[in-house]
Amino acid sequence: MIELDFSKSKDGLLPAIAQDAETGDILMLAYINKESFQKTVATGKAHYWSRSRAALWLKGESSGHVQLIREILVDCDQDTVVFKVEQLGGAACHKGYRSCFFRRVDTDDLVIVEDKVFDPEKVYGK
Amino acid sequence: MIELDFSKSKDGLLPAIAQDAETGDILMLAYINKESFQKTVATGKAHYWSRSRAALWLKGESSGHVQLIREILVDCDQDTVVFKVEQLGGAACHKGYRSCFFRRVDTDDLVIVEDKVFDPEKVYGK
Repeated sequence: MIELDFSKSKDGLLPAIAQDAETGDILMLAYINKESFQKTVATGKAHYWSRSRAALWLKGESSGHVQLIREILVDCDQDTVVFKVEQLGGAACHKGYRSCFFRRVDTDDLVIVEDKVFDPEKVYGK
Repeated sequence: MIELDFSKSKDGLLPAIAQDAETGDILMLAYINKESFQKTVATGKAHYWSRSRAALWLKGESSGHVQLIREILVDCDQDTVVFKVEQLGGAACHKGYRSCFFRRVDTDDLVIVEDKVFDPEKVYGK
């Protein structure tokens, strides 16, 4: 198993970037600890550490929007990874967008640059 | 000026992903504080916070490999940004590769998947 370098992390977590393997679009950034990285490599499905729930998080466990791993890239410092994924359900963001990065900076405003793929209330309930 | 959400950050820093605006390739991940984000927006050149030097860092200040900002995307939680950039000098990584993510996980090994663009010793000295 590849070892990542957690020495500069204040909370034992490292960033993992999920990128659409086909389009190259960046879907989301979430955090991993050792266990979630090992689970990701072992299962071929992206696992993160949920900071809000303080728990191991299989992406898509509620929504079904699982991320199938196509490739894992590791950076020069070995403290950041890219998960190149096939995004099931067509959407990574819990707000219903394909990508969490659905807004761009326009001077002092954030402008939405994507259409919603699903209605969050229908997927997660109210 | 857009305000980012630093509340979940343990060290006052947020991750910023630099993505090649043309190819969609992820070039690097570095960290920003408020000042570096403001400098990036104001100057149109990517500024980060160097954790090793504990200083504001204009990317390319040593190497000349400046990142010209084409677009800034902000995620749903407003605590991660994507800098879509034009990478001057053709390389983001201080190790001489176009991208810091020049290795992929292959079972228990890391395999280099890119060619070097420059010799780090010639750019940074020994």
